[in-house]
Amino acid sequence: MDDAVVARFAEIVGESELLTGGRISEDYARDESLTCEPRKPAVVAKPATAAEVSALLTTAAGHGVPVTARGSGSGLSGAARPREDGLLISFERMNAVLEVDAVNQVAVVQPGATLAELEQKTAAAGLAYTVYPGELSASVGGTVGTNAGGMRAVKYGVTRNNVLGLEAVLPTGEVIRTGGKTSKVSTGYDLTQLIIGSEGTLALVTEVIVKLYPRPAHSATLLAPFPDLDNVMAAVPRIISSGVAPDILEYIDNLTMAAISHNEKLELGVSDEVRDATQAYLVVGLENRDRDRLDGDMLRTAEVMSELGASDVYVLDGGGARKLIEAREKAFWAAKAAGADDVIDVVVPRSEMPGFLARARELATAAEGGVVGCGHAGDGNVHLAIFCKDAAKRHKLLHDIFAAGIAAGGAISGEHGIGQAKKDHFAALEDPAKLALLRRVKQAFDPRNILNPGVLFD
Amino acid sequence: MDDAVVARFAEIVGESELLTGGRISEDYARDESLTCEPRKPAVVAKPATAAEVSALLTTAAGHGVPVTARGSGSGLSGAARPREDGLLISFERMNAVLEVDAVNQVAVVQPGATLAELEQKTAAAGLAYTVYPGELSASVGGTVGTNAGGMRAVKYGVTRNNVLGLEAVLPTGEVIRTGGKTSKVSTGYDLTQLIIGSEGTLALVTEVIVKLYPRPAHSATLLAPFPDLDNVMAAVPRIISSGVAPDILEYIDNLTMAAISHNEKLELGVSDEVRDATQAYLVVGLENRDRDRLDGDMLRTAEVMSELGASDVYVLDGGGARKLIEAREKAFWAAKAAGADDVIDVVVPRSEMPGFLARARELATAAEGGVVGCGHAGDGNVHLAIFCKDAAKRHKLLHDIFAAGIAAGGAISGEHGIGQAKKDHFAALEDPAKLALLRRVKQAFDPRNILNPGVLFD
Repeated sequence: MDDAVVARFAEIVGESELLTGGRISEDYARDESLTCEPRKPAVVAKPATAAEVSALLTTAAGHGVPVTARGSGSGLSGAARPREDGLLISFERMNAVLEVDAVNQVAVVQPGATLAELEQKTAAAGLAYTVYPGELSASVGGTVGTNAGGMRAVKYGVTRNNVLGLEAVLPTGEVIRTGGKTSKVSTGYDLTQLIIGSEGTLALVTEVIVKLYPRPAHSATLLAPFPDLDNVMAAVPRIISSGVAPDILEYIDNLTMAAISHNEKLELGVSDEVRDATQAYLVVGLENRDRDRLDGDMLRTAEVMSELGASDVYVLDGGGARKLIEAREKAFWAAKAAGADDVIDVVVPRSEMPGFLARARELATAAEGGVVGCGHAGDGNVHLAIFCKDAAKRHKLLHDIFAAGIAAGGAISGEHGIGQAKKDHFAALEDPAKLALLRRVKQAFDPRNILNPGVLFD
Repeated sequence: MDDAVVARFAEIVGESELLTGGRISEDYARDESLTCEPRKPAVVAKPATAAEVSALLTTAAGHGVPVTARGSGSGLSGAARPREDGLLISFERMNAVLEVDAVNQVAVVQPGATLAELEQKTAAAGLAYTVYPGELSASVGGTVGTNAGGMRAVKYGVTRNNVLGLEAVLPTGEVIRTGGKTSKVSTGYDLTQLIIGSEGTLALVTEVIVKLYPRPAHSATLLAPFPDLDNVMAAVPRIISSGVAPDILEYIDNLTMAAISHNEKLELGVSDEVRDATQAYLVVGLENRDRDRLDGDMLRTAEVMSELGASDVYVLDGGGARKLIEAREKAFWAAKAAGADDVIDVVVPRSEMPGFLARARELATAAEGGVVGCGHAGDGNVHLAIFCKDAAKRHKLLHDIFAAGIAAGGAISGEHGIGQAKKDHFAALEDPAKLALLRRVKQAFDPRNILNPGVLFD
């Protein structure tokens, strides 16, 4: 990169907030994707304002410098992995929860704020931001970029259902505001929704208005072992249609449960005998502002699960429940520690989960590999750890599993995104007419192709 | 229009399904906008399949024929008002509810199906499609085009929160599918969300996958007269934060209540004395699968309203509640019958409603006109009937009211859309950088500008 360009970047954010060469740590070279090799950028800039972001983009556009945005780097698809010749904009200094507005039940947040920070600030107001991916160190900006989901999506929806407005900087340097503190608007194309999930390729988000919910006073967690995975899947629509509105509805297969139990030293009180006869577990979270109503919902849910073949239903106490949920959140780390070669999150209609899982297992066996997993059963979002050392075989296995998901009416990813890790599969499997349209939309935002080139598509 | 082009359209849909000249009835010349003059199209085509829609668009694009889509024509902004030189595609024959899928809790619907039809089919399965604008004769395709909202949006969200996937025909003739029977997906830009609310300017929707909810067994409606509008507005966030999750939360000002009561012969049991001391009413709908829980929520809601200054709280019986809700739905017709010159639906953060309403009244008085209204109080979505005969004064009044809404952090329209009726105001008040971006997005979809030219912007 030209020295004059670097000097201009330094002028914009200040010398101390611009990193080059040896001052760039390994952290900036990667996110948590298991398959994207780390790659350091030429420059890291840490802006403090939207105006600085705008000046950075204008300069980058003028010199054809590729730009990657980075929140906490906890993404799983390589969307925050920078280009060697590029500028990495780290939002670590734009990390404030600017406002928690109890009357309108919204918070105004900078992109670098973590979910943990937002959780703390909203809890103090008796409110909650309900998007709850496994990683509370994730930045709000990152969750917008990837349209993050997580366990509570079954009740509250994913990021796109919970973001009401944005401030964003276009690659042309213009700063726009979309949406606002309102839950509806009908004035032209919804730019908020278009930017959410665009993985840093359309605009850089500098402020996010999120929707908050009242925080229910009481919650409970039920754990039910099932001898058969199909029964787990059959229980899911029954629980949903019962109207108890669970905020967590997760399945965990026996191998994953063994791994997370071991790693996190979980004591769930499940006897060896039951455990050995269990193919998968269902974890159901319930919440209510009223203790009696919660008890009624627990009873009803336990009845449904027993009717549908659960060998038992355990009511976890607060501490046990928290530990189990935290362990489930760490399933990715457990898979990584166990030597998983990749982690994917295909989404299918929930009726298709048993068939899809069976097909994925068959494909893995045929490829001399294995899949184990857990997932957001209420959403049909299956998180699979892929074990298959041979790179070429693994590529074909992934292709076939993604194709099976699409054939079942689903998509390659429910919440992790495409990033760099899955773009080859996306290019191979997505409708060419849609791909061409996505490229034209990209062009409408970013005519010089400076924002995250090589993410989503080449 | 060239005879050869008309002949080609006839070949595509069949002679009997193509109308020209005197065979085109007045209905096809308009929607329910109060300010857009009727205008008959050159041709009306009634396709039966997406393939026919595709062939119509390919032909239209080849000959530069402007195309307008029409569902039931119940829109309020002129988005379905055709061009004199254009083709109107009426979806009246593509009107089937193709599937109600109870396991995945979705329905697959053709765009010409009415909400009434969808209501009937989903009710039979114990489910509900919860988007509930005033007009049940509205087509599903029309509600997608305008991102329709309605009373139940306070609990269930608007159209964009309840549509999971689309089949759509691009102006280039390509038929694409977006989303699916899943509640989440993270694979590139969300085309479903981009097409929703685009008022027929980006693509023509030929199939819609909507989200369904369990239908609660019990419901109740409370009516509370308040001596002061500000107290109504103060009660709204309190009811929402109480956690009772009302599915209806409407305010109706005294003049509107008088008009709809008179038109619909409502007997609400409110004494003359109370009525004369009332500035506005709050209508709260509650629902639950459990009768006891519903009773508890009613009590809680009544307490909150009494504490906040309601002169009384009436529990309406089933018949009375239905009549009131139906009457409220017909507020537009009451306004029209009363000689309203326009009807608008500015949305503001709900905390800003009192200030915005006061400002709108001041502006109307200064313009020697008047505003009366009702609205979705939980959403900050204010429906105002505008009385101001002088066209120039009215134009300025609307401009000033829209500007006041935007200044309060809101938008010109919460659910009616921009269409043709408000595009001048949209052009004058929207950020030019955003308008330019919307035009580039339009260009990405519709390079020949054949879909609804003159809607949203010129």
